[in-house]
Amino acid sequence: MKEFDLIALLTRDLPQNDRVVVGVGDDCAVLDLGIPEELVLFKTDAVVEGIHFTSETAPHLIGRKAIARALSDIAAMAGKPVAALVTLALPENFSTDHVARIYAGLKSCAAQFGVAIAGGETTTNPGRILISISLLGTVGRGKQVLRSGAKVGDAIFVTGELGGSLAGRHLDFEPRLAEGRWLADHFKIHAMMDVSDGVAGDLRRILQASQAGAELLKSAIPISRAARLQARQNQKPPLIAALTDGEDFELLFTVASRTAVKLLDAWKQEFPKLRLSCIGKIVAGQDISLRDLYGVQKFDAHGYHHFA
Amino acid sequence: MKEFDLIALLTRDLPQNDRVVVGVGDDCAVLDLGIPEELVLFKTDAVVEGIHFTSETAPHLIGRKAIARALSDIAAMAGKPVAALVTLALPENFSTDHVARIYAGLKSCAAQFGVAIAGGETTTNPGRILISISLLGTVGRGKQVLRSGAKVGDAIFVTGELGGSLAGRHLDFEPRLAEGRWLADHFKIHAMMDVSDGVAGDLRRILQASQAGAELLKSAIPISRAARLQARQNQKPPLIAALTDGEDFELLFTVASRTAVKLLDAWKQEFPKLRLSCIGKIVAGQDISLRDLYGVQKFDAHGYHHFA
Repeated sequence: MKEFDLIALLTRDLPQNDRVVVGVGDDCAVLDLGIPEELVLFKTDAVVEGIHFTSETAPHLIGRKAIARALSDIAAMAGKPVAALVTLALPENFSTDHVARIYAGLKSCAAQFGVAIAGGETTTNPGRILISISLLGTVGRGKQVLRSGAKVGDAIFVTGELGGSLAGRHLDFEPRLAEGRWLADHFKIHAMMDVSDGVAGDLRRILQASQAGAELLKSAIPISRAARLQARQNQKPPLIAALTDGEDFELLFTVASRTAVKLLDAWKQEFPKLRLSCIGKIVAGQDISLRDLYGVQKFDAHGYHHFA
Repeated sequence: MKEFDLIALLTRDLPQNDRVVVGVGDDCAVLDLGIPEELVLFKTDAVVEGIHFTSETAPHLIGRKAIARALSDIAAMAGKPVAALVTLALPENFSTDHVARIYAGLKSCAAQFGVAIAGGETTTNPGRILISISLLGTVGRGKQVLRSGAKVGDAIFVTGELGGSLAGRHLDFEPRLAEGRWLADHFKIHAMMDVSDGVAGDLRRILQASQAGAELLKSAIPISRAARLQARQNQKPPLIAALTDGEDFELLFTVASRTAVKLLDAWKQEFPKLRLSCIGKIVAGQDISLRDLYGVQKFDAHGYHHFA
């Protein structure tokens, strides 16, 4: 049974109440706790030794990654992070020094983004380290950007460059917090999420939530240097890597196409060092297709399928 | 290195900000997010297979325990729970049916207390199930009850009966949410926490936070039937079990002694089925002592030490 099927099973008939504005299925839960101008964002994210990092990973980068992943989800809602709790599950033979260094990475990343660490707990997890971060943030009422707002005709944008993250970037990516808030403050962003499972997979979530399809322009996909370098070794075409590799932690969003040029110009003024690419458009249907000089192909995460 | 030493090391120089009213060291973190009449309570709590439950534990009780533990911490601050996120770390060979039953226990306990499950995640944890609950609640401004407010002369109270929880109660205890709120609404509760590590250990935390000592009256300690039954098998005196066994999840609190009788009378009207015991008083110093007909003994979690 795949993860998504299990989640669909578990999240059936979840208890709800009138404080929940957005529950399961977006980057963060959104709660209305009665703050006059703001809503609350609520997110948890766990990293596990052997999956998200190894025993060889530099410990401060483990801590950094643990909290940066959750920060990226706050960014994807155009929110501002406020406070985190840290759950540290440790094998019995843990090294105090190793754990202290993990925590140092966590603290320094939290401090960088103005996030308080307000508590947490340690518990035992024989065999491996597991770190779960629980994060609270806020977003201006009406400023929260969901996955479900993409409209046919929208331009699709992505920040940064994609693919090859396992070469190192998955450990030291920058959560796009300032960028997410700036976007929502200056433009009507229709849909946004952070790219954690590859643009192809994550765009599909926006499409499902928005009941639409997408056409991507092959030549517009921003392929990272790491993806190009890895292609020499692992035979994976760089474009496939850019679309399907996980852990980019860039922002993927859509806006009305008439806004696209204005947004690109303003972005270059505001964030001159961070690439922003218009990679395609939202179309009717439910599929992702790729356009190049020769025409249009249907794309799925497992490869290419010609239309006819 | 003991858990508490590690926590002391890790929580040094934690990043803070002006939203944090109470950080590390109480039952929940307390945040001021700008809700006019309320503060926000924020808590995480994890249960791990082999430690907090076994592979033989009825799955719906595993789910129930996971969330009830966190609810008990909200109760200890006199708060009201609002929404939870569920982190489910599963071995690769998990049984879908088993996990669905765990989740059913979790959902039904959440529904019982009006808590929304607003999201969560599943991840892989080879070898064992780990469930971490992240919980948000609210408490009226000024109504939050901390560990640090106990005053010399206070009467010390505990709800329910103590000890022997491993016989079953650790799986089906009732978080004292209504009781915690009622107490803070009707009386000036000086200090409160939930009893998760035994009254002796947890009272010590109130004493440390409040810079005081305590004298307990042996005959007043409410010893559970389970603790008495177990004493026949494991040679542990029931009083020691009542004071040192973990996972009672009752409320331990202090009030000015002049309020004690009035509180007991009002409690009997409001919660006629739940025992409330005045077990001693807050005194100067930093120790816990036990009084009986013969005099006063110093007590530590490892046993008795005569004063002189």
